[in-house]
Amino acid sequence: MSEASTLLQAFKQTKYQIPGHGKRNIQILKDALQEVDGQIESDVYGNGKIIDDFQAKIASYLGKETAVFFPSGTMAQQIALRIWCDKKGIKKVAYHPLCHLEIHEEDGLKQLHHIEPVLLAEKNRLIELDDVLNMKEEVACLLLELPQREIGGQLPDYVTLEEISNLCRKKGIKLHLDGARLPEILPYYQKSAAEVCSLFDSVYLSFYKGIGGIAGAILAGDKAFTEESKVWKRRHGGDLISLYPYILSSDYYFDERIPKMRQYYEDAKELAEFFNSCPAVSTMPLVPVSNMFHVHFHASKEEVESILIKIYESTGVGLTSYLRESIEGTCSYEVSVGDQYATFPKEKVKQVFQLLNDEIKSLK
Amino acid sequence: MSEASTLLQAFKQTKYQIPGHGKRNIQILKDALQEVDGQIESDVYGNGKIIDDFQAKIASYLGKETAVFFPSGTMAQQIALRIWCDKKGIKKVAYHPLCHLEIHEEDGLKQLHHIEPVLLAEKNRLIELDDVLNMKEEVACLLLELPQREIGGQLPDYVTLEEISNLCRKKGIKLHLDGARLPEILPYYQKSAAEVCSLFDSVYLSFYKGIGGIAGAILAGDKAFTEESKVWKRRHGGDLISLYPYILSSDYYFDERIPKMRQYYEDAKELAEFFNSCPAVSTMPLVPVSNMFHVHFHASKEEVESILIKIYESTGVGLTSYLRESIEGTCSYEVSVGDQYATFPKEKVKQVFQLLNDEIKSLK
Repeated sequence: MSEASTLLQAFKQTKYQIPGHGKRNIQILKDALQEVDGQIESDVYGNGKIIDDFQAKIASYLGKETAVFFPSGTMAQQIALRIWCDKKGIKKVAYHPLCHLEIHEEDGLKQLHHIEPVLLAEKNRLIELDDVLNMKEEVACLLLELPQREIGGQLPDYVTLEEISNLCRKKGIKLHLDGARLPEILPYYQKSAAEVCSLFDSVYLSFYKGIGGIAGAILAGDKAFTEESKVWKRRHGGDLISLYPYILSSDYYFDERIPKMRQYYEDAKELAEFFNSCPAVSTMPLVPVSNMFHVHFHASKEEVESILIKIYESTGVGLTSYLRESIEGTCSYEVSVGDQYATFPKEKVKQVFQLLNDEIKSLK
Repeated sequence: MSEASTLLQAFKQTKYQIPGHGKRNIQILKDALQEVDGQIESDVYGNGKIIDDFQAKIASYLGKETAVFFPSGTMAQQIALRIWCDKKGIKKVAYHPLCHLEIHEEDGLKQLHHIEPVLLAEKNRLIELDDVLNMKEEVACLLLELPQREIGGQLPDYVTLEEISNLCRKKGIKLHLDGARLPEILPYYQKSAAEVCSLFDSVYLSFYKGIGGIAGAILAGDKAFTEESKVWKRRHGGDLISLYPYILSSDYYFDERIPKMRQYYEDAKELAEFFNSCPAVSTMPLVPVSNMFHVHFHASKEEVESILIKIYESTGVGLTSYLRESIEGTCSYEVSVGDQYATFPKEKVKQVFQLLNDEIKSLK
């Protein structure tokens, strides 16, 4: 068995798991359907009360005219960028080098839409106003991801966001929000979703990140934009005869978890403090601005794995199922705080971090 | 209220409906999940026991090396054709003028994949061996749809299929099966799914036609082909974190309805006879070769609508929710026989057709 799968196995066998909302099992769907009347009619190829109502609800939450439900964010975002490119007649968009479209989609944007990305900023930092000001290429659209997941979920100052938005409007560049984790950042910004979205021409929201649904996404904007997105949704093969399994579960967990976003954020800050109190461990960002952050261990993957397995086995508590190795020989992983952390006895958490502290010290 | 929606409303208010498996409501999913253990883990981005097992099961049913589950047939088939085109370095495929890709997908194949179709045969007839023999353009792939839905679900002779398959192999043309309704034609051909699929290089099967699931499709072929299809599935935005709501329901209704395909076929033949016994009504094909056929009325849409509404109201039985007008001023609709017909008292069916007979005669 490889070390990675050993850590995974040890994690799976823990009784308590600190990150997330709990196991991604079939019960998630069963719970969401429990109270739904079986006689309710399916949506049919994007039409019907079940999809209309949910689209209207989320459009209103985002402060946009209209919204369209998609099976995935990958599909929704490629389509958003395609529409803005077609509108401007320029097949170029700007985004961060670690944008989801650049690293997780097998180059769908390039292979299917022949859109060329202009990469703004270095990999390890956020896009700033100057990056947009100094951009030489003419682009149809700028995509901002809030929070910037691959660097620990960092966020620009709200003023920077406003300045970038104003600049884009002045330059005739459409501004698209990768808001996969939009609800998770609102407590930090102290803004409503609609306030943040008012800075953007189009917005994507995911239902299986902080919201903890099964799958599915919303793309929102003005009516001309969303109507065109429906045509592309069909072209992509996303206009399914029935999307209700994802719609009903998204709706259920949206209602359940939107009110908890502040709690996840506060818990993430507390949990990050625990990590930062250990030697050779630090979080990025140091103080989280959402429910997520990255944990960096200044030790080798092998060393940290054996420490973690020891802790999982002696406490029954799991911190992560994987570690990612860096080029420098250190390692890290991503934390998203959800329902689990709050249900956790504080004494147990302290015990885990005491052990982590001791074990890491013994490495030196 | 428009006449179309009047017919739809009248149909919805009927107690009994002759075509199909029953209403497409949420209960379909609830029934499928009823006995599933909630602790079973979700599939995760195309991996996990739930998706592996089902893909292996359907690959075996189709007699193919491997199979990949897709959210939709639209996505699966565009990808199949793209792979064959890339392999041959020719961006041309041949298919029927009423192929799903040509008329129901907003030109996804052209817009996303830049593949040009060569239309074989006239709209109102099947592709025959001569069409393939006489094809002047060089194509990477020929797609055959069995049964050819838009002309009532017609089928070529099995010998013709074998000849086309041999010819394609000789000419180096890949043969792809649009087998959305493959299980439905097996009783007529008296072949297994694997026998029919052995004539094809790649096969698509749908789970919400005769099988009556919620949504979802399989694409099957050799391993090199299906592995490449997974990359394109991600590019299309179809590699969802969880596809299990569609997988579990597809599996449930596959097991329930595959054994009933012969019954649907026999029932379709009986039902077609009832229609053909009415004046000015005929079915296409005259004798069905699957569970489906088209009903053609040699009267205007308005006349037939008012007759149907009268019948629905007096008998509580619904035949169709819509009528499609032809250029000649006549009208037609599509029937797919499912679970409903067999549960229907024969006396009630006879009463409906007696009324239809009388009403149509009174038109003259």
